[in-house]
Amino acid sequence: MSGPVIPRTGVGIDAHAVADEERPMMLAGLHWPGERGLAGHSDADAVAHAACDALFSAAGIGDLGTHFGTSRPEFAGASGVRLLVEAARLVREAGFEIGNVAVQFVGNRPKFGPRREEANAVLSEAAGAPVTVTATTSDGLGYEGAGAGITAYASALVYAV
Amino acid sequence: MSGPVIPRTGVGIDAHAVADEERPMMLAGLHWPGERGLAGHSDADAVAHAACDALFSAAGIGDLGTHFGTSRPEFAGASGVRLLVEAARLVREAGFEIGNVAVQFVGNRPKFGPRREEANAVLSEAAGAPVTVTATTSDGLGYEGAGAGITAYASALVYAV
Amino acid sequence: MSGPVIPRTGVGIDAHAVADEERPMMLAGLHWPGERGLAGHSDADAVAHAACDALFSAAGIGDLGTHFGTSRPEFAGASGVRLLVEAARLVREAGFEIGNVAVQFVGNRPKFGPRREEANAVLSEAAGAPVTVTATTSDGLGYEGAGAGITAYASALVYAV
Repeated sequence: MSGPVIPRTGVGIDAHAVADEERPMMLAGLHWPGERGLAGHSDADAVAHAACDALFSAAGIGDLGTHFGTSRPEFAGASGVRLLVEAARLVREAGFEIGNVAVQFVGNRPKFGPRREEANAVLSEAAGAPVTVTATTSDGLGYEGAGAGITAYASALVYAV
Repeated sequence: MSGPVIPRTGVGIDAHAVADEERPMMLAGLHWPGERGLAGHSDADAVAHAACDALFSAAGIGDLGTHFGTSRPEFAGASGVRLLVEAARLVREAGFEIGNVAVQFVGNRPKFGPRREEANAVLSEAAGAPVTVTATTSDGLGYEGAGAGITAYASALVYAV
Repeated sequence: MSGPVIPRTGVGIDAHAVADEERPMMLAGLHWPGERGLAGHSDADAVAHAACDALFSAAGIGDLGTHFGTSRPEFAGASGVRLLVEAARLVREAGFEIGNVAVQFVGNRPKFGPRREEANAVLSEAAGAPVTVTATTSDGLGYEGAGAGITAYASALVYAV
């Protein structure tokens, strides 16, 4: 490749409430046994969803609602990992390569450190590019601190090819 | 241009409460008829303000308060679009070109998808560089979920020239 | 250096509650006399902590818990500036150079503008790369608007060398 490579930045945020009823927790592409799941029509994987939105944002091709809304019923209830596979495909189809995606989620649970590498591997394979996930609590503040929900913040870089 | 192009990243966040009284909603450079406006001395366009702050942050030249505070009364009450025009000018004056700006806002309203391209066009023209806006809800969580306000998160890339 | 320089983006968020008891406020590497401090086992410098997490995130080497948790008791109670020095060292040890770090904090206090350059200088020296800090309020919304805490959002770029 000749000439400078000019990346584009993208941002993605996704929040999900902790479900009232028992359901499996899916987060960062993993199932977390023993954790109360998050609410939503999908698997409510806030980390994967934020990663998708950051990729769409960087490429300038809309957002989750644009691509996985009611116009594409085949993605109703799809897993976060499957959405990330499709988001990466759409971004490449639009003429971009993916540099990397970084996501941090804010929440009391799950205890993420022991499975971080596993999550990074699953999501990086889905995106076909490095995806790194980190975690923090909110020091008891806000809905995250109250244990009522999780928020994920993602940043992505893509390159026109 | 010779040598590698090294970008600088910047971050901008802006939140505005929904106004108690009737006023026009301005968001992402557009007027949203029929929507209750956001509160603030300015037009309260959280998306445009977050974009300005991300540009200032990337260039390392302060923030909205630095440039549009009481020391520059000519910007009192200025529209978000006008502030973004001036922010982009200041960033270029400081020796940077703008790569792109990405903004996602979190809020129940307005329904953004149908006017996304229109918003992107208005803000990109103001910045003289690609600005892409996306939207999400917070699944009923926090002040955004309660319909009490909107938060915008922006990321920008600039390049020393 | 030959070939394109491909940066990696990272994201870091940190929130701290305002302390119930009197303690010094440390934020953005500075002591803020007359301000009520933030709560936490460390100095609770949310800006410095978010900068560390964004660097770790960009390099893909974990997060604050990975590096400054109970496995490294020598960092118990360490200042935010000292953590940032060590975070930058770890990122370089992992094979990356640091482009820049941008942080915006959301909170009612302290009034940041007059000391922004001072904070940027202290944190940039700690990281050995440009760190720029900006500030905003949340228009009275959320825990930040209630004066109960501060949230810092950071973005970092690093380069494989």
